[in-house]
Amino acid sequence: MPEINPKRLMQDLQHLRNIGAFGSGVIRPAFSPADMEARLWLCNRMSEAGLEASIDGMGNVLGRSRNPGKKILLGSHTDTQPQGGWLDGALGVIYGIEVARACAETPETAHYGIDVASWSDEEGTYMGILGSSSFCGTLNHDDFNKAVDHLTGVSLQQAIRAAGLAGIPPFRLDKSNYLAYLEAHIEQGPHLEAQELLLGVVTAIVGLRTFKLSFTGEQNHAGTTPMAYRKDAANALIKLAHALDLEFSSLAHPHTVWTIGHIRLDPGSHSVVPGRAEMLLQFRDTDEALLDKLQDKASSLVQRFCEQGPVAVQLEPVYPHQKSALMSDKVQTCLAAAAQLHAPGRWTSMPSGASHDAQALASHLPTGMLFIPSIRGISHSILEDSKEEDIIRGCRALASATAAILKER
Amino acid sequence: MPEINPKRLMQDLQHLRNIGAFGSGVIRPAFSPADMEARLWLCNRMSEAGLEASIDGMGNVLGRSRNPGKKILLGSHTDTQPQGGWLDGALGVIYGIEVARACAETPETAHYGIDVASWSDEEGTYMGILGSSSFCGTLNHDDFNKAVDHLTGVSLQQAIRAAGLAGIPPFRLDKSNYLAYLEAHIEQGPHLEAQELLLGVVTAIVGLRTFKLSFTGEQNHAGTTPMAYRKDAANALIKLAHALDLEFSSLAHPHTVWTIGHIRLDPGSHSVVPGRAEMLLQFRDTDEALLDKLQDKASSLVQRFCEQGPVAVQLEPVYPHQKSALMSDKVQTCLAAAAQLHAPGRWTSMPSGASHDAQALASHLPTGMLFIPSIRGISHSILEDSKEEDIIRGCRALASATAAILKER
Repeated sequence: MPEINPKRLMQDLQHLRNIGAFGSGVIRPAFSPADMEARLWLCNRMSEAGLEASIDGMGNVLGRSRNPGKKILLGSHTDTQPQGGWLDGALGVIYGIEVARACAETPETAHYGIDVASWSDEEGTYMGILGSSSFCGTLNHDDFNKAVDHLTGVSLQQAIRAAGLAGIPPFRLDKSNYLAYLEAHIEQGPHLEAQELLLGVVTAIVGLRTFKLSFTGEQNHAGTTPMAYRKDAANALIKLAHALDLEFSSLAHPHTVWTIGHIRLDPGSHSVVPGRAEMLLQFRDTDEALLDKLQDKASSLVQRFCEQGPVAVQLEPVYPHQKSALMSDKVQTCLAAAAQLHAPGRWTSMPSGASHDAQALASHLPTGMLFIPSIRGISHSILEDSKEEDIIRGCRALASATAAILKER
Repeated sequence: MPEINPKRLMQDLQHLRNIGAFGSGVIRPAFSPADMEARLWLCNRMSEAGLEASIDGMGNVLGRSRNPGKKILLGSHTDTQPQGGWLDGALGVIYGIEVARACAETPETAHYGIDVASWSDEEGTYMGILGSSSFCGTLNHDDFNKAVDHLTGVSLQQAIRAAGLAGIPPFRLDKSNYLAYLEAHIEQGPHLEAQELLLGVVTAIVGLRTFKLSFTGEQNHAGTTPMAYRKDAANALIKLAHALDLEFSSLAHPHTVWTIGHIRLDPGSHSVVPGRAEMLLQFRDTDEALLDKLQDKASSLVQRFCEQGPVAVQLEPVYPHQKSALMSDKVQTCLAAAAQLHAPGRWTSMPSGASHDAQALASHLPTGMLFIPSIRGISHSILEDSKEEDIIRGCRALASATAAILKER
């Protein structure tokens, strides 16, 4: 069995945390200078681990084993939310490097082929799971050409050029190369901790859909415009958001989630009736039929508001829909065995409420995911954290599962 | 009777429109480079009109007549909303200069004393009716020290320093100098146009109160955080805004208005449950007792939300309350006579739904306001406009009223 080096693992995670550090969290959105600095550092760290490392035109970092034969692909992402945590994504990438190093250092496993990837823009600054979709050849080029950072207005293509990646050919998956894709990740939710469990083996990843709702009324003076004359875009947004919340509550399954994470009023002054407003609505579930129902409900509410007036409302998808994805039974079995080895009786099978690069890979390779607990379930926040012992245990379990699959070759 | 020069009037208005032009509107918020450029140009234009013009440490421009005896003060403001119209404020200031010129050019009125003011930050980029309050000695210095542009985070004191005004002593009203304060303004509402009227004589100005509501929940992942575990600041904001709208609707008088003009979610990403949110709520009426009722209702809703949880809510005034103000009966009589002269049978007495510098002056000098129609009632928008014939008629009426008051001296 390969033996990971906990000190080296934690040092690498801490090093990565310092690139774009913001309080206890990290600001390293896709293609930002900090994201690119992290990717160059990863290339170096992979090279030191004996891998052939390079970066492609999408920002993907791939470290390739020099060993012959079928390989395992380990990966995750190192881009972050606008204000993200230090482990989201970074954990799985550094685990990959550590598992490759541990196998290389152990005579019995030194011939194992382990490739390691850090996919680009998993968080969807421009387009969610961009890099892994490109790798799998499922990138929608219309969506790619239209992708924009909605916070800054910068397009994906501009961002790629600014990062110095324009013209570099993208990596492409050769399925015959790999036995499986494994991704370890923090849970990002409260379930494991609440049940005092130490590891989670993922059964399926939720599908998610994100829509922009745009409201067009008439900008006017907040003192002189009588209520009955107003075409108040903010008032329409508040009413529609409230109605959506009620309707979704009645349709939802126990694990369905929906979020309004962004609202903008134009011009945004205390004494001006807003003429325009927009909000982003996202909802997730493993059941695609339920997602259809929620989308239909949003559409019919928008239509009702348009008919009633006085504010026009438009609903449009802003990021490509992400379909729900089942994990491979065989890989789940290997991960479950490793979980039982390192956390006897204290692991569970569970769905993933978060989207992951494994979603893109699952249609092309036998894919599995392993979760470690998140303290208080907090993620997508600078407060995100996990216990060091849990971080180390997760890497040991991933190493065991990886070695078990490669041993069977 | 002094004869105004319509061509010169329109040329000055157009010149001012070009300073900070933005489409058909103007971006000239208080203490911005464009605002300061406009104020220096006004000083020059006043000097050419024979006035002694200077700018004080608050950004007020005052052009003083060299004639002896009691004077009339004519004024308004030349700062704008973040995206404002070309006539809001500018009209009354240029009217003042034109009336001063017209009186000086007419032998019978050349000895009349007319001072002209452009007050600073009427629009409340930092603090509503700042300059006129300072002039009247009613500026609250605690509010002054705390005043901040909520869109940029820049403090009022920083803005004054950056505009090069630090250390210049502020002008102070000497009541014995003046017979009255007159302010002409576009109506900024739909009433005059809807009733096919040409002039409005203002009876009273509404009081207004503005509050910031701050929501503190917990930032978290939008996929992995079950609905029941969430402390979603955006969800609390939407629910509270919706409840406020219902409650205010049932308490309101026919002329009461309320507006949510600004909402901000933090961090504002589609896949993050917002941990913080804020919104600005403003309401206006001439009846201070009703304003008290609305404020009590907002407070009790906030308290109910805090008790229910899971998100904490805070309510605090962000700009000083502006009290409603009655216009002088005597000045109203003079303005009514002038309105009847220039628009026989086509003028009305009316309250002002908008706040104006006249609100600050009304406690200290006999004060009156004259309105001209706004096309489609649109204001605080780059679409704001008035007919040229209405602009010219308004200036003639102001000149008549000014001359009538000074003649009685």
